[in-house]
Amino acid sequence: MHLDGIDILISEVGPRDGLQSVSSIMPTEAKKVWIKALADAGLREIEVGSFVPAKVLPQLADTAEIVTFARTIPGIQVATLVPNLKGAENAIAAGAQKITFPLSVSETHSQKNLRMTHEQAFIQIKGIVELIKSLPADKRPLFEGSLSTAFGCTLEGEVPLTKLVKVAETLIGLGCDEVGLADTTGYANPAQVKLTITEIWNAVGKDKLTGIHLHNTRGLGLANVLAALETGLTTFDSSLGGLGGCPFAPGASGNIVTEDLVFMLDSMGLRTGIDIAKLLKVREIVQAAIPAETMYGFTPDAGVPLHYVQGGHGWGLSA
Amino acid sequence: MHLDGIDILISEVGPRDGLQSVSSIMPTEAKKVWIKALADAGLREIEVGSFVPAKVLPQLADTAEIVTFARTIPGIQVATLVPNLKGAENAIAAGAQKITFPLSVSETHSQKNLRMTHEQAFIQIKGIVELIKSLPADKRPLFEGSLSTAFGCTLEGEVPLTKLVKVAETLIGLGCDEVGLADTTGYANPAQVKLTITEIWNAVGKDKLTGIHLHNTRGLGLANVLAALETGLTTFDSSLGGLGGCPFAPGASGNIVTEDLVFMLDSMGLRTGIDIAKLLKVREIVQAAIPAETMYGFTPDAGVPLHYVQGGHGWGLSA
Repeated sequence: MHLDGIDILISEVGPRDGLQSVSSIMPTEAKKVWIKALADAGLREIEVGSFVPAKVLPQLADTAEIVTFARTIPGIQVATLVPNLKGAENAIAAGAQKITFPLSVSETHSQKNLRMTHEQAFIQIKGIVELIKSLPADKRPLFEGSLSTAFGCTLEGEVPLTKLVKVAETLIGLGCDEVGLADTTGYANPAQVKLTITEIWNAVGKDKLTGIHLHNTRGLGLANVLAALETGLTTFDSSLGGLGGCPFAPGASGNIVTEDLVFMLDSMGLRTGIDIAKLLKVREIVQAAIPAETMYGFTPDAGVPLHYVQGGHGWGLSA
Repeated sequence: MHLDGIDILISEVGPRDGLQSVSSIMPTEAKKVWIKALADAGLREIEVGSFVPAKVLPQLADTAEIVTFARTIPGIQVATLVPNLKGAENAIAAGAQKITFPLSVSETHSQKNLRMTHEQAFIQIKGIVELIKSLPADKRPLFEGSLSTAFGCTLEGEVPLTKLVKVAETLIGLGCDEVGLADTTGYANPAQVKLTITEIWNAVGKDKLTGIHLHNTRGLGLANVLAALETGLTTFDSSLGGLGGCPFAPGASGNIVTEDLVFMLDSMGLRTGIDIAKLLKVREIVQAAIPAETMYGFTPDAGVPLHYVQGGHGWGLSA
């Protein structure tokens, strides 16, 4: 499986998913420096915040300002999370180029997370689709319906694949541009990832599912990336230093670590466009801004192999 | 990739590779309790020690006694490492059923680790083969030549695949029953793992390479397991709590963690024969015996998914 020349999009979720999960509040100026440094390291999509009430997530109260700033950086797609129509209005007003609505496939989780039943969430999604349609074509953001708890739920246990597929069909039917898979609970395994992607593709088409958000809660994060990659997905969420993603316990990171993900893909001969040395330096910015938080990652500790040359040629793949 | 019914052999290396890498010396009685508990949890192959001089590795000075004890436990294959003919003589005298000679493919590493050139190591290997042949057929241990630094060397960098294949051919030619691949340095990536297995199979035959020893130094351990599994290997080394394997830095475990490996394989619907709940309890024995050492693992922190049922049915794989 020498995949020379395949381009992979890494969507960095640290500024949103990372910061919403830690108790430290990062100053707005530090966020800007961080996001700029990520772009300089070669990241091409960054989820910079979430349009939720400041009293719910004070860490992300400055999201509108951050979006406006991020839009001044050339070459990146600026993504945000929105939990409802109101959030989407604010995201669009700020200039977000991609908006993601996180719908928990498990209805119990949906009630806890968004305080909405599926029917209530579908009404919000429909409203967002109509809002987007009302915009001039060049002002419309990409609208993704994220299938949270896609691989299992901490409240319900196993999530039936038939149910997941049905929700995916509903989201596409309502007018989402695409759906995304999210292993919110860190329950996924590689066989399940492959089967799930295939079934959703069969239901809604390959162009409607291109990305996946995986956690490393049980250590399977990168194995699940490999499974998704082999099935044909090319967009992967991850977080610098593994920040966020609801870490269950100390030492158990939630989100997969961007640094380790980039090393894996690059060493396999895939092209991420990301400079590992620059990426590792970005950690220092984040750690200095939120010194109380733990940053994870194996590659940052161990470094790249001796005489490693970056750039998608692949390590150990030539005779 | 629903692999129902595939049997996987996990070779637990903690009592050898784990203990040789930590500074604590585990009392002999605690080792026995540990090994017995591993067998009770369903492990079927355990590398219990190494026949090296006690002054080199005082942690493993009791290996002969441990082998003799382990042989009284039904249902397990008792494996040991041997660095030379003398070690093999002692291993066989003690009753080892499998002996592994660790040959570094990188000659610089071989000089540092075994203080032998390849030519000198080949002489030892030849002597071991002759010793084994001199035994009655039912007394002969399985003899594996382990290809250390197979995926790269911390002293030489990339290890050419052609060289690796040549050394594998030499070991089989000298009379080793099989070769094993070892990512001693944690440099391997999934594409490299697949290519390497395929090339070695092409050279020496599928039956001569069945197992792999992977590290998690850069976080790719389980992704590399998946790659090897998909290529067709069915034996995987791992260490309880990720003990050992030359951790490069704090937080960066060396060996892949048995608990996480078993969870991954079991959740994929593969059969390991290992009871996860019992396996997790074994950690307590080890931690109590060497309290100064850090035990790693994500699954131990997070636990298995809600309503998880063990036994190879696979999580999320039924409609």
